[in-house]
Amino acid sequence: MGGDDAPEMIVEGAAIAHDRAPHAKFILFGDEARLKPLVAARGGLTAACTIVHTTETVANEDKPSQALRKGRQSSMRLAIDAVKDGTADGVVSAGNTGALMAMSKVVLKTLQGIDRPALCTFIPTLRGECVMLDLGANIECDEDNLIQFAMMGADFFRTVKGVQNPTVGLLNVGVEDLKGNETVKNAAQIMRDVAMPFEFYGFVEGDDITKGTVNVVVTDGFTGNVALKAAEGAVRMFGRFLEAAYRESLLAKIGYLLSRGALRSMRESLDPRTHNGAVFLGLNGIAVKSHGSTDGQGFANAVTLTINMVEQDLIARIVDDFVQYKFDTVLQQKAAIS
Amino acid sequence: MGGDDAPEMIVEGAAIAHDRAPHAKFILFGDEARLKPLVAARGGLTAACTIVHTTETVANEDKPSQALRKGRQSSMRLAIDAVKDGTADGVVSAGNTGALMAMSKVVLKTLQGIDRPALCTFIPTLRGECVMLDLGANIECDEDNLIQFAMMGADFFRTVKGVQNPTVGLLNVGVEDLKGNETVKNAAQIMRDVAMPFEFYGFVEGDDITKGTVNVVVTDGFTGNVALKAAEGAVRMFGRFLEAAYRESLLAKIGYLLSRGALRSMRESLDPRTHNGAVFLGLNGIAVKSHGSTDGQGFANAVTLTINMVEQDLIARIVDDFVQYKFDTVLQQKAAIS
Repeated sequence: MGGDDAPEMIVEGAAIAHDRAPHAKFILFGDEARLKPLVAARGGLTAACTIVHTTETVANEDKPSQALRKGRQSSMRLAIDAVKDGTADGVVSAGNTGALMAMSKVVLKTLQGIDRPALCTFIPTLRGECVMLDLGANIECDEDNLIQFAMMGADFFRTVKGVQNPTVGLLNVGVEDLKGNETVKNAAQIMRDVAMPFEFYGFVEGDDITKGTVNVVVTDGFTGNVALKAAEGAVRMFGRFLEAAYRESLLAKIGYLLSRGALRSMRESLDPRTHNGAVFLGLNGIAVKSHGSTDGQGFANAVTLTINMVEQDLIARIVDDFVQYKFDTVLQQKAAIS
Repeated sequence: MGGDDAPEMIVEGAAIAHDRAPHAKFILFGDEARLKPLVAARGGLTAACTIVHTTETVANEDKPSQALRKGRQSSMRLAIDAVKDGTADGVVSAGNTGALMAMSKVVLKTLQGIDRPALCTFIPTLRGECVMLDLGANIECDEDNLIQFAMMGADFFRTVKGVQNPTVGLLNVGVEDLKGNETVKNAAQIMRDVAMPFEFYGFVEGDDITKGTVNVVVTDGFTGNVALKAAEGAVRMFGRFLEAAYRESLLAKIGYLLSRGALRSMRESLDPRTHNGAVFLGLNGIAVKSHGSTDGQGFANAVTLTINMVEQDLIARIVDDFVQYKFDTVLQQKAAIS
């Protein structure tokens, strides 16, 4: 029931995702009276869908604490509960981000060895896509948080992209060792000195995000949130200026018509819908946040990403990295260094 | 002598700035043997130019501390000294940013009432230009620093743009009062409660920078540096994708040719050269950093900005705000609140 055009957009997204992955089953949580006709109108979707009825929802204005206390029968909470009890393999929501993060954390619990889960998403770059985390789950982070983000981000990139040894960069105001605050300097020192389960590139700067310098960009939730939105805002401004330029004269309009096809593929690769789906990494379960303002196509992309993570067993890979071997090693080696 | 194409680019910039402001005089610091023929080749410039010879320069790799110790006869240091002793009204350099900041701070000194100078620049937005500070001079900032940045930024915007009551926003991960770290929450509380010499808008998010939501965006140097570079990187990516789209087919190429004029004006408004010149605010003197990779046109814009600040007497306006009246009031009222 979450998102600007829910539940219509959600059902449309499920239908598109169903076409792409006919073996996947969907459980829709929400008002059955509204959902049932929407699903019925989508032909093949009926057989792949179960509806769990509830009239309660989490509103966009609800504070996470409110949602936690009062929202136990909300569509969002029931969906997360379904992941907890194994009925579902993952949850996708286009609703209230803070509530989704708080509820997921309380219900699914944080994985052993991870202090704080982090929000992570794909970002278009000149060389394909990178992932960046944290995007706002943790406003203040210490060096251990950043190193854990690096490990989770590398697992995520490896799992979804099939790249065995992803490169990880730590976001900073310069690339020299002396730059930045103590937190990033310490985190970089450890990742340089200790054998990590990824290739540590070193520091990267804000423009390296879209250059595609590294596969995984690691930063605290304050900087990550601001940087992502600053980049999105800049792309939107460019797009508006471009539209205005095409409207400027008849000649420009004709030029636009001729270039339309080529421009469409460019727009697609920069379209937020193409990169939709922020993953809440570090939990014992898969929880994905879709943009609230996306459409069915965008929501389907978040669902497809979720299916991909389930099928590639992302959680098991993170558990393996953190619990069984590698993060213990990091901590031991860190202790040995200091 | 600073900048990728110096000193040719510097002299070209001086010539363009001279055309715009024929009353302005230029002192060029550097190798006379190289500068003299360049100036002579620029017709009218000779009468407006003095050359102060030195062969020493600050290199891009020099650490600020090195430059301070060893660079006393460098072109950069002599230019800053000229502002200190009143020979020049302001200094513009395309050289080493860290060295320029360190030297300017030591030589020109910080104004009374200001704890830390900040780096500030214009940024294109959907509604014209905004200014943002700090862009990297101060990696960690407390609430007093942020409030001082807000005052200096407002003075800068007012002076250069002639807007009497600029709006100021504090960069954060959300707009609600509860969002963010203690530093931004405390700073916002004070600016809401106390009569400030500007209109405090409240919190803004990363995408508000290019939306033009406020005239002045205030943040710590870490976040500001990353956000500005992330936005610049995103614009550059968009531009590259656009170029690639136009090369995609003959039709697209023809479309480009027809739209060329309109696209040119768009590019100009997003061109970093158009917005060139980061001002080091809070010093007892005007110090401006030009992009090192700019051309004569871009350098001329930084020079013109400097002339503008000198003629509008920016320093006196900041002194007025901080020393004579307003910042004392802020501190008193803040003490009364807490």
